[in-house]
Amino acid sequence: MGYTEFTIEGRNAVLEAFRSGKPIDKIFVLDGCQDGPVVSIKREAKKNDTIVKYVTKERLDQMSETGKHQGVIAIAAAYEYATVDDILKNAQQKGEPPFVLLLDNIEDPHNLGAIIRTANLAGAHGVIIPKDRAVGLTAVVARTSAGALNYTPVAKVTNLTRTMEELKEKGMWFVCADMDGSVMYDLNLTGPIGLVIGNEGSGVGRLVKEHCDMVAAIPMKGDIDSLNASVAAGVLAYEIVRQRLQAK
Amino acid sequence: MGYTEFTIEGRNAVLEAFRSGKPIDKIFVLDGCQDGPVVSIKREAKKNDTIVKYVTKERLDQMSETGKHQGVIAIAAAYEYATVDDILKNAQQKGEPPFVLLLDNIEDPHNLGAIIRTANLAGAHGVIIPKDRAVGLTAVVARTSAGALNYTPVAKVTNLTRTMEELKEKGMWFVCADMDGSVMYDLNLTGPIGLVIGNEGSGVGRLVKEHCDMVAAIPMKGDIDSLNASVAAGVLAYEIVRQRLQAK
Repeated sequence: MGYTEFTIEGRNAVLEAFRSGKPIDKIFVLDGCQDGPVVSIKREAKKNDTIVKYVTKERLDQMSETGKHQGVIAIAAAYEYATVDDILKNAQQKGEPPFVLLLDNIEDPHNLGAIIRTANLAGAHGVIIPKDRAVGLTAVVARTSAGALNYTPVAKVTNLTRTMEELKEKGMWFVCADMDGSVMYDLNLTGPIGLVIGNEGSGVGRLVKEHCDMVAAIPMKGDIDSLNASVAAGVLAYEIVRQRLQAK
Repeated sequence: MGYTEFTIEGRNAVLEAFRSGKPIDKIFVLDGCQDGPVVSIKREAKKNDTIVKYVTKERLDQMSETGKHQGVIAIAAAYEYATVDDILKNAQQKGEPPFVLLLDNIEDPHNLGAIIRTANLAGAHGVIIPKDRAVGLTAVVARTSAGALNYTPVAKVTNLTRTMEELKEKGMWFVCADMDGSVMYDLNLTGPIGLVIGNEGSGVGRLVKEHCDMVAAIPMKGDIDSLNASVAAGVLAYEIVRQRLQAK
């Protein structure tokens, strides 16, 4: 587990990294360089929302670790994921009932980062994200998490509902947020709990919601529909914190 | 009060808008256009983090309302600010003790938008921001607020502490968030209240903090320093909501 950044140098290496789907945050390209491979790299960068910076040869030489940058250096992100078992062990080691956040298809890396940050500070033992569709752990997520990615384990699972079933067998309860639920203050959230946060636009998926034991509503007094996903996650996570503190 | 977007057409008009400090979200420039005024406009756009889109003449002709775009159309944001009195009247009309959010120098427009969204849903009667330094109501803020900017009044004041003094004379109490405060669950937050949210990096300013009646701490169990500013605002605003619901 842990997040690191590393550089990839040289045209083929960078192009290969893009094509294999590695999360590349930024590339540095020799200013004025217009030949074929560089054009391909810039096209891949555009497709992947990678930031492109044009710099001088001196700057590239300075950054280079191999001395063979060929006019291109990429900054890539690497994250070693935890397993669901690591998260449960984390709870056990602290002598606390498990408190896990499950993210059902969060798309915005800023939200993912802010939620991992919240998970850390609310004392959650880990975060579980699905393998497909949702955003992965990019450099933006690492930055927005304000360092939490180095402390709070994040596990990636193939099938969120299957993981929920397995965790239920181990005694965990699941609560998701939805407007049609019970007011969160009226629910008992003190046991071993998984808090499920839905997608920014469409909320929690039907199947995932059916696997939840409780549906919690955040009281809404306003004129618009819903809170920002990371704010909703924070409000719910802290209701769990409040109830756990009071239950002591 | 209210947020609208409007277009500014023509080279001089757009350049003038930039120079007068109008918040411009995006400019559309005729592709390939390289002459002096257009270069100046692009320079201003870069300085102001305005998005630049290169489009065809047909597209500009379609967008143009005056038919005289000269190769440049800007999308600008206009917001008519509320006054502090508007906010107090809003509370009075709803027959509720005032609940106001004061933002001491929030810099990130995404945070500002998310906080206005939270203010709306938590039933706050308005948001007060300082005139200087902090971010204003740009198109990014409008978008991130998910429409809340059209419902929740936002007032801009010259001096935040002077406004706090005036509101204190009208019976309001102020609470700010800081780690060295009392745990928020132990404070009484049910009266007429102003919740002060500090800057993303440096927190609440010294002078503003001295003007607060209470300092509330969000319990932090993690390894890192602090929550994202908009998440912290959400957690605190909903502690006020919870206490007000229970006091009924």
